[in-house]
Amino acid sequence: MSLVLGIDGGGTKTVCVLMNDTGQVLGRGEAGASNYQSVGKSAALCSIESAITQATASFQAVPVEAICLGVAGVDRPADIQVVETFVQQLQLSDSLPITWALRPSTIVIGNDALIALVGGLGHCVGVVAIAGTGSIIFGRNSTGCTKRVGGWGHLLGDAGGAYHLAISGLRSALKAYDGCDAATTLQERFKQHLGLSSLEELVNVIYQPGWSVKDIAALAPIVAQEATSGDAVALGIIEEAVKELVKATQVVVDSLFSPSDIVEVVTTGSVWQGFSLMREQFEAAFVTHKPGVKIVSPRYEPAYGAGLLALETLSNC
Amino acid sequence: MSLVLGIDGGGTKTVCVLMNDTGQVLGRGEAGASNYQSVGKSAALCSIESAITQATASFQAVPVEAICLGVAGVDRPADIQVVETFVQQLQLSDSLPITWALRPSTIVIGNDALIALVGGLGHCVGVVAIAGTGSIIFGRNSTGCTKRVGGWGHLLGDAGGAYHLAISGLRSALKAYDGCDAATTLQERFKQHLGLSSLEELVNVIYQPGWSVKDIAALAPIVAQEATSGDAVALGIIEEAVKELVKATQVVVDSLFSPSDIVEVVTTGSVWQGFSLMREQFEAAFVTHKPGVKIVSPRYEPAYGAGLLALETLSNC
Repeated sequence: MSLVLGIDGGGTKTVCVLMNDTGQVLGRGEAGASNYQSVGKSAALCSIESAITQATASFQAVPVEAICLGVAGVDRPADIQVVETFVQQLQLSDSLPITWALRPSTIVIGNDALIALVGGLGHCVGVVAIAGTGSIIFGRNSTGCTKRVGGWGHLLGDAGGAYHLAISGLRSALKAYDGCDAATTLQERFKQHLGLSSLEELVNVIYQPGWSVKDIAALAPIVAQEATSGDAVALGIIEEAVKELVKATQVVVDSLFSPSDIVEVVTTGSVWQGFSLMREQFEAAFVTHKPGVKIVSPRYEPAYGAGLLALETLSNC
Repeated sequence: MSLVLGIDGGGTKTVCVLMNDTGQVLGRGEAGASNYQSVGKSAALCSIESAITQATASFQAVPVEAICLGVAGVDRPADIQVVETFVQQLQLSDSLPITWALRPSTIVIGNDALIALVGGLGHCVGVVAIAGTGSIIFGRNSTGCTKRVGGWGHLLGDAGGAYHLAISGLRSALKAYDGCDAATTLQERFKQHLGLSSLEELVNVIYQPGWSVKDIAALAPIVAQEATSGDAVALGIIEEAVKELVKATQVVVDSLFSPSDIVEVVTTGSVWQGFSLMREQFEAAFVTHKPGVKIVSPRYEPAYGAGLLALETLSNC
């Protein structure tokens, strides 16, 4: 029996699945964050090891032939090297109930977009449109070619992500407050939500020490709600965000697939889950102009996608 | 002889002028930063005292009847209170060659926009359009009413400031790189300027620890240069920035002056000095639609404006 491990190493949590060669999940474990750029290498490795321990807890001497780790922010050769040392250290660990049987060709290291794509679709060919705090569109075709658009972070890109929606909402509220733009219900909603007596106090909230990108991103649902309630300014922000995500998705589809292909695009991330209006507009944009593109909701979690990618290395041998 | 002090307390330097009752500058001093939110209260007070010491160095027992301090970021009552304690401490200092004769009505505390307005125009009525790292438009009419638009900082506003120009340029370069937007010469220029082998490496530069708003703002001249050379994307960024500054200026003018008034708008800050294209477009926008608005270059420095505001308190008595 060939067994493989699929690991989703995220900024919030780490998920590991133990999978057999038919794609059946035999065990699953969860642990803390493992994006080592934020939490450090030893904490990241510790999270990964802990998730593996949970996933394999019901077994003894599990023969693991392949492993795939999808880790947030892993793009460059130097990043991949760090995760490779994690795999080496896991193989040296004597606390895991695993008999390692990895070969170089059965170790897959990639970023979180790749495993979100494969997990979300349940197979390896198509596109994932991730819109969480940030945004990234990533695709892979049947020859294994990949294309990424976006993923440049909150300052340099991420239009369509929650941070960008929130910042656009805040900027619009202040422009309205200044008398430079149309009035918007966002003004009153941000004031209420943040407990401000005047919108002027936004400055004290947003620039306060310790306020992070995620804190600002958490204000995005207000923009979505006001858009749904019919506020023209909020609606404009949502429409602009959808336009950016549609454009980015089209670029990825066009660069990897031919016009006659049926291409599945899976939407993952908090923005799609929370803001149904954006999901509807996104889907509608393709129905008209690119009927070959099918927008789908995630079928499996990213760790499952990592498992499938690990399995794929065995069938290739 | 009535003498007054005008102090410009900025984030980079502090300037003090000693002025007589005809507006003649008798002494001038410069010291380090005095925006106490960044450098701390004691360092700020130290800079102010040092600038005063230099400005009054040629005198003994200078009788100072009025003082005006314009300090960056001073807007709320709590901020004003901090600067009031500075004035109290200056009066207790025994190292200054000053015989203080201040009264509550001859102490003026305001923000840097107010003194930039009065210094820039050489009088107290009109508008200042500040575009440095950030942007703010501030006006004052003959009844003393004021109106501010912008000044919300790099995340919440500042369209037209150097930070915003630079970020827009970087975002556009990456969108072009992704294939989502028109090609632009900004791609090559940013790569060259930052010594990158690929635009992908922008992420490592912009998000590196220690990189500040000012570091990003320092890339704005590249956008201005490419616009001048005819790059359509860069030109679009400049035009959008001018549009925002024109709109904000119109709002300030309309809220303080009547349509028949002649209103002087003084442009101050690094963006106006460096990017002549923006200055030309800004001026052109008013020539057509608001011929009563006259765009002028700064006549005096902000510290001189502070001196005039201090003098004004004496003539009001």
